[in-house]
Amino acid sequence: MAGRQRRRRRRDPPRGCLVRRAGILIASTRAATGAYEDRTGPVIADWLSEHGFEVIPTAVVPDGPSVGAALRALLSLSPAAVITSGGTGLSPDDRTPEETRPLLDREVPGIMEAIRAAGLAKTPLAALSRGHAGLAGTSFVVNLPGSPSGVMDGLAVLDPIIEHLCDQAAGKAGHDHGKENHVHE
Amino acid sequence: MAGRQRRRRRRDPPRGCLVRRAGILIASTRAATGAYEDRTGPVIADWLSEHGFEVIPTAVVPDGPSVGAALRALLSLSPAAVITSGGTGLSPDDRTPEETRPLLDREVPGIMEAIRAAGLAKTPLAALSRGHAGLAGTSFVVNLPGSPSGVMDGLAVLDPIIEHLCDQAAGKAGHDHGKENHVHE
Amino acid sequence: MAGRQRRRRRRDPPRGCLVRRAGILIASTRAATGAYEDRTGPVIADWLSEHGFEVIPTAVVPDGPSVGAALRALLSLSPAAVITSGGTGLSPDDRTPEETRPLLDREVPGIMEAIRAAGLAKTPLAALSRGHAGLAGTSFVVNLPGSPSGVMDGLAVLDPIIEHLCDQAAGKAGHDHGKENHVHE
Repeated sequence: MAGRQRRRRRRDPPRGCLVRRAGILIASTRAATGAYEDRTGPVIADWLSEHGFEVIPTAVVPDGPSVGAALRALLSLSPAAVITSGGTGLSPDDRTPEETRPLLDREVPGIMEAIRAAGLAKTPLAALSRGHAGLAGTSFVVNLPGSPSGVMDGLAVLDPIIEHLCDQAAGKAGHDHGKENHVHE
Repeated sequence: MAGRQRRRRRRDPPRGCLVRRAGILIASTRAATGAYEDRTGPVIADWLSEHGFEVIPTAVVPDGPSVGAALRALLSLSPAAVITSGGTGLSPDDRTPEETRPLLDREVPGIMEAIRAAGLAKTPLAALSRGHAGLAGTSFVVNLPGSPSGVMDGLAVLDPIIEHLCDQAAGKAGHDHGKENHVHE
Repeated sequence: MAGRQRRRRRRDPPRGCLVRRAGILIASTRAATGAYEDRTGPVIADWLSEHGFEVIPTAVVPDGPSVGAALRALLSLSPAAVITSGGTGLSPDDRTPEETRPLLDREVPGIMEAIRAAGLAKTPLAALSRGHAGLAGTSFVVNLPGSPSGVMDGLAVLDPIIEHLCDQAAGKAGHDHGKENHVHE
């Protein structure tokens, strides 16, 4: 527990294993064309670094089919996690969830439920975020909203579970072990 | 903001654009056969009028396949919204969600999550409402329960989001714009 | 209502109809091989008995495809309910939801939403339970987590709804009747 007692910006990489890599994908037509400076990528990158991930340079793509192509490219690197931001609303070109879903082998619906429930405490518009969360092979993928505050709220929900989640997905935490030690899985 | 300061029964139609149309579909075998007077249609019609929608006359159909046929007929009119009531439970003929889902291009799961969560504060049976919410093209479709109180609870969740939701679905609110101004999308 | 006023361990079988049967399926490789003694089966069996179900002897199978095979075998007995425990997490062999989903005719997503929401009050890891709930024909099926405390929390959510749920699924509670008497369906 010494590692938890020391305050530091960057956590040690997960005990004794290879450093985990993580990808970030920004879906925003305006950011991709330079009309708008994305502010969510740096927030996500900092958060991933703090959690011991090696961060792959952020990809910024227009909304729509580019999102699926960029996501497949990222997943080909077998990262432990990919966090997307943007394209989860109801505009005609908001198709990040539709581009993501076919790439997931197993959904984890409770993560988006928890993120939306947390958001509802701030704004009823949180109900409109349509993202998915799940596993593509052993890579965890989650669709966060495009707003910086929505991203921060999503990361707050992921904060206490991301390490356990990646351990489980990588097969590093036996699920029977989990049954004895964790309350709900 | 003057429009919000004046109290009035019927809001002005959304600024400067064509009046939006909305459909209502009651799924109830007993109401369709006249054995029972539906009380939810008028509640939904009033609510839609208050939100500036032009209301298409309510369709009342028996549970089951008629629901899908009536929904397709309504959607062929390209309404901004369709609200259904009834057929969301677990009885063998409660098939409104199954009739609705194939007609949706994009789901908005957070809406039903929010409606069920609001209902759970009143009764554990709210967990049994199986409705979907989503977009069929640019039309927003939502399955509310068959009880008047369930309908009112669902409308209360939709109240603060319906205008923004229809703006987005119609492509009238750029999602990058949304990113700057709205907390969660 | 006299039946509710008397305190008793075992409720009378539902009024005037055949006794309902219920199955229990434990997904745990370690329990199936005898390396671990399952503690959730007895908890579920007691709960089912208390609710008037005749309990089919518990099946314990390894995680993975055996879960689907055992579930199909149980469903062939046309039970009113099947409760599974285990295999809902993110480990590579946690595939109970994937083995269950294809067997469901109609999903009841609000049940897992309610179970996960209740779990989140205790631990953020509750978001990782990926179970489904729904109907396979007239049989209600629900995937609970593998931990005893997770099972107890899930049963607490089912407690006030299981009887009405099975009545509805069996077509014993007309849904129009439900519309008049129940707030949300």
